[in-house]
Formats: sequence, structure tokens, C-alpha cells
Amino acid sequence: MQELKDRIVNEGKVLPGNIIKLDGFLNHKVDCQFLSRVADAFAEIFDIDNVDILLTAEASGIALTSICATKWGIPMIYAKKAKSDNIEGGLYQSEIYSYTYKKHVTQIVSKEWLTEGQHVLIIDDFMANGEAVRGLCDIVEQAGGILEGVGIAVEKGFQGGGDRLRDLGYNYHALAVIEEATPDHITFRE
Amino acid sequence: MQELKDRIVNEGKVLPGNIIKLDGFLNHKVDCQFLSRVADAFAEIFDIDNVDILLTAEASGIALTSICATKWGIPMIYAKKAKSDNIEGGLYQSEIYSYTYKKHVTQIVSKEWLTEGQHVLIIDDFMANGEAVRGLCDIVEQAGGILEGVGIAVEKGFQGGGDRLRDLGYNYHALAVIEEATPDHITFRE
Repeated sequence: MQELKDRIVNEGKVLPGNIIKLDGFLNHKVDCQFLSRVADAFAEIFDIDNVDILLTAEASGIALTSICATKWGIPMIYAKKAKSDNIEGGLYQSEIYSYTYKKHVTQIVSKEWLTEGQHVLIIDDFMANGEAVRGLCDIVEQAGGILEGVGIAVEKGFQGGGDRLRDLGYNYHALAVIEEATPDHITFRE
Repeated sequence: MQELKDRIVNEGKVLPGNIIKLDGFLNHKVDCQFLSRVADAFAEIFDIDNVDILLTAEASGIALTSICATKWGIPMIYAKKAKSDNIEGGLYQSEIYSYTYKKHVTQIVSKEWLTEGQHVLIIDDFMANGEAVRGLCDIVEQAGGILEGVGIAVEKGFQGGGDRLRDLGYNYHALAVIEEATPDHITFRE
């Protein structure tokens, strides 16, 4: 998606540790009109008519996925981190390692809302090592759901998460795959 | 908002500790078409043309606020919890107590995105004791922003957070104010 690549180049900042900061339009301040066009780009790739529910991970996947869900007229679920008071028993759980927070995190989804035979499309804003999406795929499998695909806005190609899903034969697509990022320049995979 | 009240009565569950679970349409599985109508209800109350930016708190406020931002054509910011690697210096911070997680949490917003003189509307899905919104108001004040109002979908009226804002003279509105909640019945404030 050219507009996404342009915004990454023009507005992204590369910090030490290969951190690519897109917090001016993607995951802190959010340009929702732009995300609406990102949703349109996903709709050209995936067979949305065949999707029952969208699944994402809190927190940064929620904005993009809500906008997709609104446009496409289907519900969404976001996996929560850790256990809060207002989620009782009956949970699918997956342990992942968060490189952002440098700790293990448990993703949880209520069994009440993700059920066997549902066609699930996973959407997320960012793919680095792929831990969050690995956990979501695991949850879909626990639920007996049918994974229709995984759509990512920005993939850090050099961290391998996307390639692992491609190698495993997933219907995986990222709209911008960053091949190299330094403070001076960002290049994309063709 | 009658449709919201109806869904609370029909789909909400009251758990011990006055927890009202609306996770089938509001904050785990999310009915985004419904939240689009919630956005319309806010637009009848607030002067949206006079709002530069929406502010909410991660994670549960993000879905509703993204949908509002998309419909109204304005950007949103969500305050993050704690410090992650990809937010560097230059932050507004506010300490709040999370009753959900039973611990103190630091809300952070980058100074880059919330700036002096901006007209800010705070949106959130839930108001109980009001800690999250108190933190957001504090951040708007730190930024020198102009708080245009606070819009909440569901207020737990018996926990006092909404009344404190009303008493302080804020342009505060909740679309459904729950006066009493037991496992058997939920009543609303008129």
C-alpha cells in the first residue's frame, strides 16, 4: 500500500533497538480516516464475505480492527492481556513474550464469544517477531475456529515473524514490509 | 440512549463486587455497528465541529473512540498505560488507581501529539469511580488543551465518578447511567 509506505518514510522514526515509531498516525495518535483506507486495502486481499469475526490483540490492534469491523459489518473481538476482574472463567489462553514490555503476557479470549466453526480473520497493526499473532492463531485453534487469514498493516520483515507465517502456509498478508530501517532511511521489500 | 439501556439489561451480567460485564458488545467482543450509533448519540450532545482531537484511555476506550473519530473526521489519541519501549521522552503523565487491575497505573500521552490550545473531547466506554477520566482531564490540563467535554457510554452512577465531574461543572454526559445493579435487575437514573 503506497500511501502507508509513504507515511512510514515521512513520519516514522527509527529508534535504537530497531524500534520503528509510527505513533503519529498508527498507534498513539491515530489517523482514523487513513486507517479506513487501510481497511479498504485489506478488503481487496481477503474474502471478507466469508469472515464471521475479526480478532486482534489489545491495545494497538483495536483501532484498526474496529474500523475494519465497522466498514465490513462484522463483529470484532480483542484478546485481553492478563486477567482483570471482569473476565471470569471459560477462557482460551495463550502465553506470549512481549518484546515491547520485555515480559511474558497471557492473552485471553472468552469462550463465550469465539466458538467452533467461526471463520476468523486476524488483523493487527504491527508484526515484528510475531508473538502476538502466534498467540491469536493458537487461540483460534483452541476454539476450533477456521482461520481465514492474517492481515497486518506494517511488518518488520527483518524480524522474521511474517516469514514464519508465510513458511507455515498461512493466508498472511502485510501491506508494507520493512526490509531495513536505520535513522537515515527505511527500505521496503518488493 | 434507549438501545444502549436495552442491551445493558438484555446482555449485561452483574458479578459480585458490583462488576457489570458488557463484554459481548462493548469491551471484549465489540459490536462496531452498534458503537457507530453510540457515536451518533454523542454527536447530538457535543459540538463536534468545535473539537480538534478525541482523547481516550487504552484499552477499552479505543474501539468506541476510533469509530467516533472515523465518523467525525478528526484524529484520536489514546493514553497508554505504563512505559513501553517505543514511547521516548516528552510525555504528559498522570497517576491513577485502576480498580479493575487493583494497582496504580501511569497514563502517558506524548507531548508531540497533544498540544496547547487544542479543543479536546474525552470519550470512554465506561465510567465507574472515574479514575481513568480524571487522569485524562489532568493530561489535557498539563497540555494547555481546552476540554470541550467528556462523553461516556455507560456510567455506574452509584460509584460517584460521573457525579464528581457534574459537580465540578464539566460538560459531562453519559448515555446510560446505571443507578442500581444486582444479578436480578438493573435500573437506570432518569
